[in-house]
Amino acid sequence: MEPNASNNMQPDNCLEITPMEVHKVVRPPHRSTIQKLKSRLKETFFPDDPLLQFKRQPLGKKWILAAQYVFPILQWGPNYSFKLFKSDIVSGLTIASLAIPQGISYAKLASLPPIVGLYSSFVPPLVYAVLGSSRDLAVGPVSIASLILGSMLRQEVSPINDPFLFLQLAFSSTFFAGLFQASLGLLRLGFIIDFLSKAILIGFMAGAAVIVSLQQLKSLLGITHFTKQMGLVPVLSSAFHNINEWSWQTILMGFCFLVFLLLARHVSMRKPKLFWVSAGAPLVSVILSTILVFAFKAQHHGISVIGKLQEGLNPPSWNMLHFHGSNLGLVIKTGLVTGIISLTEGIAVGRTFAALKNYQVDGNKEMMAIGLMNVIGSATSCYVTTGAFSRSAVNHNAGAKTAVSNVVMSVTVMVTLLFLMPLFQYTPNVVLGAIIVTAVIGLIDFPAACQIWKIDKFDFAVMLCAFFGVIFISVQHGLAIAVAISIFKILLQVTRPKTLILGNIPGTDIFRNLHHYKDATRIPGFLILSIEAPINFANTTYLKERILRWINEYETEEDIKKQSSIHFLILDLSAVSAIDTSGVSLFKDLKKAVENKGVELVLVNPVGEVLEKLLRADDACDIMGPDTLYLTVGEAVAALSSTMKGQSSSYV
Amino acid sequence: MEPNASNNMQPDNCLEITPMEVHKVVRPPHRSTIQKLKSRLKETFFPDDPLLQFKRQPLGKKWILAAQYVFPILQWGPNYSFKLFKSDIVSGLTIASLAIPQGISYAKLASLPPIVGLYSSFVPPLVYAVLGSSRDLAVGPVSIASLILGSMLRQEVSPINDPFLFLQLAFSSTFFAGLFQASLGLLRLGFIIDFLSKAILIGFMAGAAVIVSLQQLKSLLGITHFTKQMGLVPVLSSAFHNINEWSWQTILMGFCFLVFLLLARHVSMRKPKLFWVSAGAPLVSVILSTILVFAFKAQHHGISVIGKLQEGLNPPSWNMLHFHGSNLGLVIKTGLVTGIISLTEGIAVGRTFAALKNYQVDGNKEMMAIGLMNVIGSATSCYVTTGAFSRSAVNHNAGAKTAVSNVVMSVTVMVTLLFLMPLFQYTPNVVLGAIIVTAVIGLIDFPAACQIWKIDKFDFAVMLCAFFGVIFISVQHGLAIAVAISIFKILLQVTRPKTLILGNIPGTDIFRNLHHYKDATRIPGFLILSIEAPINFANTTYLKERILRWINEYETEEDIKKQSSIHFLILDLSAVSAIDTSGVSLFKDLKKAVENKGVELVLVNPVGEVLEKLLRADDACDIMGPDTLYLTVGEAVAALSSTMKGQSSSYV
Repeated sequence: MEPNASNNMQPDNCLEITPMEVHKVVRPPHRSTIQKLKSRLKETFFPDDPLLQFKRQPLGKKWILAAQYVFPILQWGPNYSFKLFKSDIVSGLTIASLAIPQGISYAKLASLPPIVGLYSSFVPPLVYAVLGSSRDLAVGPVSIASLILGSMLRQEVSPINDPFLFLQLAFSSTFFAGLFQASLGLLRLGFIIDFLSKAILIGFMAGAAVIVSLQQLKSLLGITHFTKQMGLVPVLSSAFHNINEWSWQTILMGFCFLVFLLLARHVSMRKPKLFWVSAGAPLVSVILSTILVFAFKAQHHGISVIGKLQEGLNPPSWNMLHFHGSNLGLVIKTGLVTGIISLTEGIAVGRTFAALKNYQVDGNKEMMAIGLMNVIGSATSCYVTTGAFSRSAVNHNAGAKTAVSNVVMSVTVMVTLLFLMPLFQYTPNVVLGAIIVTAVIGLIDFPAACQIWKIDKFDFAVMLCAFFGVIFISVQHGLAIAVAISIFKILLQVTRPKTLILGNIPGTDIFRNLHHYKDATRIPGFLILSIEAPINFANTTYLKERILRWINEYETEEDIKKQSSIHFLILDLSAVSAIDTSGVSLFKDLKKAVENKGVELVLVNPVGEVLEKLLRADDACDIMGPDTLYLTVGEAVAALSSTMKGQSSSYV
Repeated sequence: MEPNASNNMQPDNCLEITPMEVHKVVRPPHRSTIQKLKSRLKETFFPDDPLLQFKRQPLGKKWILAAQYVFPILQWGPNYSFKLFKSDIVSGLTIASLAIPQGISYAKLASLPPIVGLYSSFVPPLVYAVLGSSRDLAVGPVSIASLILGSMLRQEVSPINDPFLFLQLAFSSTFFAGLFQASLGLLRLGFIIDFLSKAILIGFMAGAAVIVSLQQLKSLLGITHFTKQMGLVPVLSSAFHNINEWSWQTILMGFCFLVFLLLARHVSMRKPKLFWVSAGAPLVSVILSTILVFAFKAQHHGISVIGKLQEGLNPPSWNMLHFHGSNLGLVIKTGLVTGIISLTEGIAVGRTFAALKNYQVDGNKEMMAIGLMNVIGSATSCYVTTGAFSRSAVNHNAGAKTAVSNVVMSVTVMVTLLFLMPLFQYTPNVVLGAIIVTAVIGLIDFPAACQIWKIDKFDFAVMLCAFFGVIFISVQHGLAIAVAISIFKILLQVTRPKTLILGNIPGTDIFRNLHHYKDATRIPGFLILSIEAPINFANTTYLKERILRWINEYETEEDIKKQSSIHFLILDLSAVSAIDTSGVSLFKDLKKAVENKGVELVLVNPVGEVLEKLLRADDACDIMGPDTLYLTVGEAVAALSSTMKGQSSSYV
């Protein structure tokens, strides 16, 4: 592209003859196409301007800043003190006590061997401690990503008949999830996760919580033949068609521990200082139930237990990754979906706690950290991990100061893996089910749903779509439907932009929406409209029809007819932030159409880009001749009123 | 939904204490959720308010208006005069002379028997004459829809090996195309075709013209073994790999007639009064070439001819429609694509000529007319038809006054079908090829492409995508890619809205973009930003980052530092036309974030809907307390300047 391409051949003079000497609409300062492209790209991909800090620094300092940018540990590491460590060790041990039972439970949710859940709580936190920029994020497997990973892979491969292949696919999906997350960050496309709005997430999470809880009916009721489907209907029918398999010992145990865990959660929610009650409850439940089973040999009385677990640290798994073959499509798809879901959770958690403690989290950098963590994880027998809502909240409440708390947790898990694995042999599955149910119930956010209903009914509808889509169709499709509806709403807003009719607020030169400010009055002879959106191909047809309808409506209103007919159509373009070629021809068409009705088209305050494009059109002087371009509505009305012959305007 | 749900529990008083007595931001008049939904639906689906004319009319008149609405012929029919008929008969005969050779040619383009092209020029124009509201549209088969129909069906069924099935699929596709078009009109979803922007259409048409022209190499060079693919590369390689099949007689004949047709076209373009030269040239070519072939028995010298055609009117074909079976997916897909393409052409042509003659064409009504025409056509051996660009232009130039010219054309075609079919037996295919090439060359619009380059570089890029996509990939995919890019651009605009920094134009209370109006000056202590887009889930994260960056940039600029730090962040919300729940929380977050920097957040002129939703938030009084909501930027600055202690503002 030629840098001077925007130097057009139009004479400038069509702008020079505006009648108001004081406030002319001026041409914006010249910028070449390259300059415009550059600033547009910067706004799109680098809105946070990460290079700002590098400006006006010596070279050595720049290198240090760059290293600190890539490895945030270099930023806070040198100032790390024993005082901070004391806080971190308390919070690290607290989240470890939560991470161990949750790791085992979530791995079962994903139909993976329980030990993979512990592996995933060992390596990824270490990676995140080096690369991550959040101080509160507690890293590990999470319920929703586990659920989706398991359910998507189970559609093609059975974890019972072919456990090794299933494991391979899980690691491969983790690899692609990480690759996708890191690429989003590297290519600075992080805004893609913004399309999962808060309303969608609330509906989605609640739906997923219901689905996850229903899955736990298997272990809570002690059923052995359970459906592999996820929907509300098949799961409930499976649970009630197998009443003969229900085990009263399991139900009793599950009920007791569920009540215990929910009580603990309730206590911590009432008094945040007692965070350790709910944080420690799962580990207490595991220990207590394991002792119970061991003491009463309950595994022979219908209570199913985890069984023997292998000791030792993460074995390497890079040779298990699938990069070709018939399942490649499946693992890429699974990777994409779990990647984006876990990324959304991780980023949202990071931002929430950063806002609480008033520090900045760089979204794109976090994506790279989480992505790299999953890529490395996939090579070391870990499945998809991210920053977990519940665990990070516990971490924050326990006083975590830096990512060192993740290291403490990781070391604790390592000790467990090395020495304590035999202890879990008698842990009953029913307790793991109770732990999962307690964890996911927290994902259902009723107050937020009420607030959404109050503020925006459409958002509420989107939320319900996500919720019911997840419950009745599937987790992925429910999410996809909700995103599609949200995007459709944005497109609809663009396709049907608002046009407001403005009136003068008496005694001022302020013009506001007639239907909002009831004291605003029409100026006889003028129809003043404000267009409230960028004008582009998707809305030019509508805008033309709508504006002509405004004129028709104006002319058919009885009381106005008596006063005067329209002489001027004033379009306030202040809110038109962009325009394209179709938009430029709208003004040509409109000018012609209104001239046939004896009305003159007047434009007010086009912003820089819009003005430039209008001027570049072949017949710019036709659209914006003298007397048809003003800086404010007030000035336009004042100037044009004086030119209106044969009748005096009521506007001062 | 309860109608009174928007009656929220917030106290109103947070709005009452604004400090400016004169111009308060007032709450918009109350409307219930149902009322809002109703007006939103009306704006979305009935922007042209088709029921306006029915208002305040007696019942009898209403019935007449309704009948006229459904059958526009009742509107103009009663006033039809012999004078109008004289004009219509001239234009009708002119377009018939064009329609007969084009019908035969386009049917061959779609791999259908030539006679189907004539059938399609008989029934649909009659239907359109009754239902259509355009006075200039000349109805019949068109090149691009024929091309797409043929190429999509050929992918699955061979027209040579299984001609009957191919014909069945063509009629079935026509049925679904018509059904789809009529449904779009009936459901008032006509705005869907607006997503095919002018830039896309120009690129797409040019690409299709190239593809269609290349397909004619088969008949122009006399090749018998020609590729069935559509792309540029396979077609050219097929043409040059079969040099041994080239027939010099065919090439000579093709060249002569091509030159003749192009010359005729050139003459008519130079002098629009001589429209009949290019309009009659195809028929002259057909007659001349047929006589030549007959006289010299050229069919035995390598010139391929159409061959024997059946006499008689359209046979019924409703029993040939496929509503089930293995090809149903294919015909629905083909129907959708050809339906939307031909609809776009028909509507665009109708609107163009309506604008020239200054009458209105109702898009949704036209869609129903075109759709019904295709549904009826599919039952009477016609394939997809619509209003054709070239033929309508000839119709218009020939002085057509009403749709009666379509009836005249139809009757002429009927006479041809009944009595003149044997005459076409010796018409050489090469002349049909030349006619097609001449017709589609007119679809390449260089001046419009240049204009687009001048006005909007991005639109130009979209145009190129459509063009190269069609040439190198496929007609449908090229179109899909271009539409996807256009929609992506809209989403990008929403995701990355503009924020402008405003300054005061000295001596006034007008505030405009500092980077556009160089004489505008900053007010010390104030950072004034204008947000230029609806605030929603897709851009809240960006807006927060960007606004905080504005503050950082402002504070690091040396010259400003010396003057004063920021005390107030004023956000001008005039251009924010809508907001959702995420947008509401943006203001909460932002207020907190800037308060940490010692800056107060002030909002200016939120429009009705935005104000309402902000007020409905739980902590509305936090966001918009006294002193933080003003009607204009000028008033905000004036009021706040006086409250700023310890330093005097330079703003008067």
